[in-house]
Amino acid sequence: MSKQFDVIVIGGGPGGYIAAIRAAQLGFNVACIDEWKNAAGGPAPGGTCTNVGCIPSKALLQSSEHFNHANHHFAEHGIEVKGVSMDVAKMIARKNTVVKQNNDGILYLFKKNKIAFFHGRGSFVKAAEGGYEIKVAGAAEETITGKHIIIATGSNARALPGTPFDEVNVLSNDGALNIGAVPKKLGLIGSGVIGLEMGSVWKRLGSEVTILEGLPVFLGAVDEGVAKEAHKAFTKQGLKIELGVKVGEIKNGKKGVSVAYTNAKGEAQTLDVDKLIISIGRVPNTIGLNTEAVGLALDERGAIVVDADCKTNLPGVWAVGDVVRGPMLAHKAEEEGVAVAERIAGQHGHVNFNTIPWVIYTSPEIAWVGRTEQQLKADGVAYKAGQFPFLANGRARALGDTTGFVKFLADAKTDEILGVHIVGPQASELISEAVVAMEFKASAEDIARICHAHPSLSEATKEAALAVDKRTLNF
Amino acid sequence: MSKQFDVIVIGGGPGGYIAAIRAAQLGFNVACIDEWKNAAGGPAPGGTCTNVGCIPSKALLQSSEHFNHANHHFAEHGIEVKGVSMDVAKMIARKNTVVKQNNDGILYLFKKNKIAFFHGRGSFVKAAEGGYEIKVAGAAEETITGKHIIIATGSNARALPGTPFDEVNVLSNDGALNIGAVPKKLGLIGSGVIGLEMGSVWKRLGSEVTILEGLPVFLGAVDEGVAKEAHKAFTKQGLKIELGVKVGEIKNGKKGVSVAYTNAKGEAQTLDVDKLIISIGRVPNTIGLNTEAVGLALDERGAIVVDADCKTNLPGVWAVGDVVRGPMLAHKAEEEGVAVAERIAGQHGHVNFNTIPWVIYTSPEIAWVGRTEQQLKADGVAYKAGQFPFLANGRARALGDTTGFVKFLADAKTDEILGVHIVGPQASELISEAVVAMEFKASAEDIARICHAHPSLSEATKEAALAVDKRTLNF
Repeated sequence: MSKQFDVIVIGGGPGGYIAAIRAAQLGFNVACIDEWKNAAGGPAPGGTCTNVGCIPSKALLQSSEHFNHANHHFAEHGIEVKGVSMDVAKMIARKNTVVKQNNDGILYLFKKNKIAFFHGRGSFVKAAEGGYEIKVAGAAEETITGKHIIIATGSNARALPGTPFDEVNVLSNDGALNIGAVPKKLGLIGSGVIGLEMGSVWKRLGSEVTILEGLPVFLGAVDEGVAKEAHKAFTKQGLKIELGVKVGEIKNGKKGVSVAYTNAKGEAQTLDVDKLIISIGRVPNTIGLNTEAVGLALDERGAIVVDADCKTNLPGVWAVGDVVRGPMLAHKAEEEGVAVAERIAGQHGHVNFNTIPWVIYTSPEIAWVGRTEQQLKADGVAYKAGQFPFLANGRARALGDTTGFVKFLADAKTDEILGVHIVGPQASELISEAVVAMEFKASAEDIARICHAHPSLSEATKEAALAVDKRTLNF
Repeated sequence: MSKQFDVIVIGGGPGGYIAAIRAAQLGFNVACIDEWKNAAGGPAPGGTCTNVGCIPSKALLQSSEHFNHANHHFAEHGIEVKGVSMDVAKMIARKNTVVKQNNDGILYLFKKNKIAFFHGRGSFVKAAEGGYEIKVAGAAEETITGKHIIIATGSNARALPGTPFDEVNVLSNDGALNIGAVPKKLGLIGSGVIGLEMGSVWKRLGSEVTILEGLPVFLGAVDEGVAKEAHKAFTKQGLKIELGVKVGEIKNGKKGVSVAYTNAKGEAQTLDVDKLIISIGRVPNTIGLNTEAVGLALDERGAIVVDADCKTNLPGVWAVGDVVRGPMLAHKAEEEGVAVAERIAGQHGHVNFNTIPWVIYTSPEIAWVGRTEQQLKADGVAYKAGQFPFLANGRARALGDTTGFVKFLADAKTDEILGVHIVGPQASELISEAVVAMEFKASAEDIARICHAHPSLSEATKEAALAVDKRTLNF
């Protein structure tokens, strides 16, 4: 007889491993199946985020930021250095160490929470008495049964039709994180988040970077004012950004990649690069899950169909994270994972989709929560806007990084905060205050009246809130 | 006849200039008097904070942090540099530029808000019809009259009896910010904030730093757990910290400073240093204000006596910031300045002393809001504590800075957050979320249930909130 579990989680990324831990905390007997392998063939739970996403990109961004400081900003501080160079292999090795720390951390958490971990691919066999039979195909083949199944199989990078990722010259996020030497010329198709982040990394290390974006606007999902500021900053850094292009034939040869495209004016162009990153979005991953065996419903995008509570069409089967609707963000997956575990326990887990923060870890960083100005216009909402530049912030001046601003959008009548948009230093950390404020239905006036430490970048948040009422103190 | 103003602000530091701006916004005819001079003799408003406090110390901390990275952390990132050296004069010059940007920014704000600025020292002449006559002694001598007077004259470094600051060898915060070359040996008496920050700066640049603290505990005002962690980190960095010492004779000679002291064991010791920073607190500054002329009441510490609304014993005379009771923090002064301007306008300005954040900008940074664990014990409050280490935070690992933790203290019965204490990377920015939460009387559970961006240091805040209920997800 196969091993029995209360809850089986398929996928050990942020949605999956967090769901497993929360379920274990709630007293369930839990298994988690994950197939990701490290270079030695051992388990590497954490999913895209830990292995080829959030975590390794942050490691490389940090290394390249130091390199950039050494080359371009040390002189103003009075720091004299000679012969700055980057050992790319060492930088990548450090990144791999950081990833391994996180993989091992998750394995430790499984042990600590008494979660049975199975290293392999999980797939449905059939509905069985009191649940579902799940086959694990990996180092050891095994079949286990679970009363509840949580699917957290994530997503994969979308390829361009006819141009498969070879991860040598044509790169997804995976290959983009493992380039072995600074490419002379780097091309990016699409301005997806990891693509932009990796473009930043390699630009700092000396690559000539060109971004080809099909849309006529840059960062269309971002608040227009923020996108404009980011475009200005990236262009100043030397990133070439071409909007409104139509990509044609892509030739992947021994000497590199050649991209034929038509520019916004309709002129035929060719971009020759050493490496090409394709960053045009991600698709839900249900490969090998054998959904047909149990009749699990997918939508036309290939995502698992779920309701607001992450319930699928099958009793006892749940799905969370990138494999379902909603933003493909690690922390959204985590929140869903917690909520599902709590729902299985009869509690009332809740995810507030209106207060999920977004972050792009470029330099400057971009972060926001709530609606953009263009969304409010489209929704016909009367709003007031307030903005404060980091140029007028003492801490930013002391740091030597005064790019960008904080922008508040508040309801014209009630003053409730509807959106906070930040482009600039530490945006990824500053956004947390705005999320908490929105969860408490704070007004802009509330933030304007709350004491903020001096000197801190967060004072720009307070001043942007004051700006909504046209009474900034330091601008 | 002398010039008439609705409001005269004496002192152009954070309390003063902000009060002047807010009063001008509210429609008053406002003057601000400040005597601080830059090197060229021109006006340098901004007070201690801008000239010899918050701002210049942050500039030097940033420069020395880069230097430290280059020397100790670049190798792990794969960055190779040769011959790292610091041109201290250049570092100080950059700091002076940052200070001047802030001085000039305030002068611009005075113009923009139509505030009459007087460069000189303000002092009371007498009560006059409809207000007070104030003399300005400076570049131009002048007498002006104001209906309301706001005193924001700040504080001065406290000297050790018998050991005046010469700002060459025996330094206050002022001289500590202008040391011309890296001292071989640097001594600190007292573990005051600016002293500690400057100790960090010169340690990173190569000084041998010794701190002599009279109290038996390190950072007594800080949460005990945080102080212990900071002590460990500072000691690891090579700062020598001696507690429970009794300082004896100090000889300031040509070759440096010699400090005789008794250590905690009662043994007679001598500390010979090139430079000595005295950082044993600050005293309210009313020098030259001529309070006697109008009968303005001071307390035994020399602070101007005010009520909860910053009203002095004289009608129409107010005082804010370091010159009155309460913490000597720039942002506390600012909040009082805004509140007083609003009270003069008949509004109901309010300062919540329970939610004023504290920050020490050492490395690791220390920040907190609300009560410490030892305060809660002393107050007999039943509480729950939750703590999460940056070691288990993905962003901290990617940054390569995993020192410290976030600690929550919540009411045992209601779960209301009573204090949040952070030691670690970006503590100065992370604290703003906690302040907003406390202003909204949030429970630890509220923060535990709010989505935080991944990967970010702020996830440690969420996890510390989860730790209150013993259900951390990543530790």
